[in-house]
Amino acid sequence: MNVDIGNALAAVAEPGLSRDELATLDERVARAHERIERGRTDGEFGYAALNLPRTTDAEAIRDAVAPVADAETVVTVGIGGSALGARTITSALAADGGTSHVVLDNVDPDHVSRVLSELSLAETAINVVSKSGTTAETLSNFLVVREAMVEAGVDWTERTVVTTGDEGPLAALADEHDLPTLAVPDGVPGRFAALSSVGLVPAAILGCDIEGLLDGAAAAAETLDSSLFECPAYAYGAVAYGLEERGATINAVVPYAERLEPFAEWFAQLWAESLGKDGRGQTPARALGATDQHSQLQLYRAGRRDKLVTLLRPRERPSLDVPAAEADALAHLEGTDLGELLDTELRATEASLAEAGQPNVRVELDRLDPRGLGELLYAMEAACVLVGELAGVETFTQPAVEWGKQAARDVLEGDETEKTAAIEDKHELIVDGEGGR
Amino acid sequence: MNVDIGNALAAVAEPGLSRDELATLDERVARAHERIERGRTDGEFGYAALNLPRTTDAEAIRDAVAPVADAETVVTVGIGGSALGARTITSALAADGGTSHVVLDNVDPDHVSRVLSELSLAETAINVVSKSGTTAETLSNFLVVREAMVEAGVDWTERTVVTTGDEGPLAALADEHDLPTLAVPDGVPGRFAALSSVGLVPAAILGCDIEGLLDGAAAAAETLDSSLFECPAYAYGAVAYGLEERGATINAVVPYAERLEPFAEWFAQLWAESLGKDGRGQTPARALGATDQHSQLQLYRAGRRDKLVTLLRPRERPSLDVPAAEADALAHLEGTDLGELLDTELRATEASLAEAGQPNVRVELDRLDPRGLGELLYAMEAACVLVGELAGVETFTQPAVEWGKQAARDVLEGDETEKTAAIEDKHELIVDGEGGR
Repeated sequence: MNVDIGNALAAVAEPGLSRDELATLDERVARAHERIERGRTDGEFGYAALNLPRTTDAEAIRDAVAPVADAETVVTVGIGGSALGARTITSALAADGGTSHVVLDNVDPDHVSRVLSELSLAETAINVVSKSGTTAETLSNFLVVREAMVEAGVDWTERTVVTTGDEGPLAALADEHDLPTLAVPDGVPGRFAALSSVGLVPAAILGCDIEGLLDGAAAAAETLDSSLFECPAYAYGAVAYGLEERGATINAVVPYAERLEPFAEWFAQLWAESLGKDGRGQTPARALGATDQHSQLQLYRAGRRDKLVTLLRPRERPSLDVPAAEADALAHLEGTDLGELLDTELRATEASLAEAGQPNVRVELDRLDPRGLGELLYAMEAACVLVGELAGVETFTQPAVEWGKQAARDVLEGDETEKTAAIEDKHELIVDGEGGR
Repeated sequence: MNVDIGNALAAVAEPGLSRDELATLDERVARAHERIERGRTDGEFGYAALNLPRTTDAEAIRDAVAPVADAETVVTVGIGGSALGARTITSALAADGGTSHVVLDNVDPDHVSRVLSELSLAETAINVVSKSGTTAETLSNFLVVREAMVEAGVDWTERTVVTTGDEGPLAALADEHDLPTLAVPDGVPGRFAALSSVGLVPAAILGCDIEGLLDGAAAAAETLDSSLFECPAYAYGAVAYGLEERGATINAVVPYAERLEPFAEWFAQLWAESLGKDGRGQTPARALGATDQHSQLQLYRAGRRDKLVTLLRPRERPSLDVPAAEADALAHLEGTDLGELLDTELRATEASLAEAGQPNVRVELDRLDPRGLGELLYAMEAACVLVGELAGVETFTQPAVEWGKQAARDVLEGDETEKTAAIEDKHELIVDGEGGR
């Protein structure tokens, strides 16, 4: 993996970083790197995530999923960090692009009913993931899925794998029914847990090379260095931080590969929940190249100068030639490789942004294989931790989510609290187009 | 459909709009409305889009798709405005949630090969859409799909419907092979064309009620009014504009319905390409409720005060009860309706944002049916046109996309131009983690 930060320099872009600013950032990176290494050595909360490539026990995962290794489809019941990593990995690595991995990460009754009606439940493995074992969406969906299995005459205890903390209702349920159970790793927030059982179970069931993924992540861990000029992950993080300081408050992540579309979602959670605090943090905007050139590029090029555009591509792709066409007007397409076309679009977009002075960074994998994906996920986690150090925020917590969670719980449990009162007393100004207000 | 702007008022949020500011905006809305009505009456470029509910000929669409009405799957070959509306409509309205509608809107060789290998081409309808008839991605993909059909022994001319302008290679090809052909409506940019043949063909093939959709849109057209207090579409547009002026440079659109996930993408194009110009325009951030509460809410509540959060929900949903659980700790979930849970989450999130002073707006449909979706799509288009008037930008063009398009074309045609030179001369600073720079 490499990162090209040339188009984020002040010589090209505004906002952009001068060589002097990079040198100053580099000194701060050295100090942040020391802090990160200390956190890793001591296995501190959050920093422990950067040790996963060597602490995750792939064999234990293989053992746990062995009873459902025949499954045609995996249904992950989880939400947020308990779903996005797993989805990202199967989309990138499963032979079918992850279509055999269904994620129930929402409590939409219409959607859940439809998904269940379309599945052959006897050939399905259920992967339930909740660290606390109390997440309302996850447990509600699990109870619905379990009942569907019972109604279909399928022994759900034979088809279910659980990943959860040591205690809580889900751990108790797994214990009671003797379900294969994997532990959520200690000291690792959900959004940093892709490289553990939290992210690897569906990939393991679907026959992906999770060992190769962990090897790639371990190789990326080896590149962590006290200089941003020696470490792609830190180069990316330092530039994102430096540009945010200069007004790039949005980070538009644009993978040029369909299989990486969920990666942009995973990245969006990583960035938003880790860095969106204390009145700061880049807002991640998810996109897909080349598709979104026809949707977002107008804004990226001609809108506010508040964006870093992160372009991402594998250097190698399978080939697929455009066949001959009878019309002369299409002759220039004949024999073009689709991948070549896609890469040309990336380079044209990159140049187009640079020409307009909009900062952009290119992240390249050798190829989209287990090793390449492992490098990418690890590098982005390390980049995020670095930005957190530079910005001085608590990277590994998400306190602002609690208010709403508690409010929803109060409503569901029928309690009357300050929070339920706030919901009831909503300030309304309704325009309904029927003369009403 | 209604829009509740209560949580965007200065009494609740910062940035927020005072009653006086709303009154001033309302005067400007009256003038903008006059301009819009004049544009509609004269059928001016762009404004003509707001007449589609009565100019689109649903019967002509039904006739064109009759030969492929037996199709099990529809493949749309198109990109940007030629794909997102169609995707949005089938996702919302098709019985299977749009899974029988496959969109090839990218030139990723890995993805295109995989999709084609999984299809039963004899049971597939191909829907090719390109206004100019020259879009490189679309035509390349079409040539690949066509060859796959030939190789599978399927007569592609029996399975293909074309939507294009009067001239160009695609029109010529349709003419030569006598393919059923629909016209792209005059004076309507792609991103405003969902309510025409450009957006309706796949829905018509899959048996959706496109007439009901157009009726809903026509009803929304009836609500356009000189006061934002009488028109949900203008209330939304005026508040989005007013908040952008006060610093809400991001618009996070969060539908609470899986079927509306592609709607957020459609909206993102509408907003970004129409309003992202002259150094302004809100950046759309796409999300999904309740899922992204576990991913983006931390940032929306505790990050910069630069966001309008748009919450969207249908008021009625099918019901699905959470079954009984043996564990006491889960007892509070028993009997909860999943839809109730989802709506509770919306209200808790809304209150959570308001409590933190972050502006948000709630958009409600009666239900997610053809009429409701028609109202929604039309209202958002009208809101966008209104914002364009208030901001004084050219809503209906996308000039900033041209540089990159031409650059890619120059490369593909082997020309050496200023643009290809800019691509070749990219400013590089590569960090590769192997001691290189």
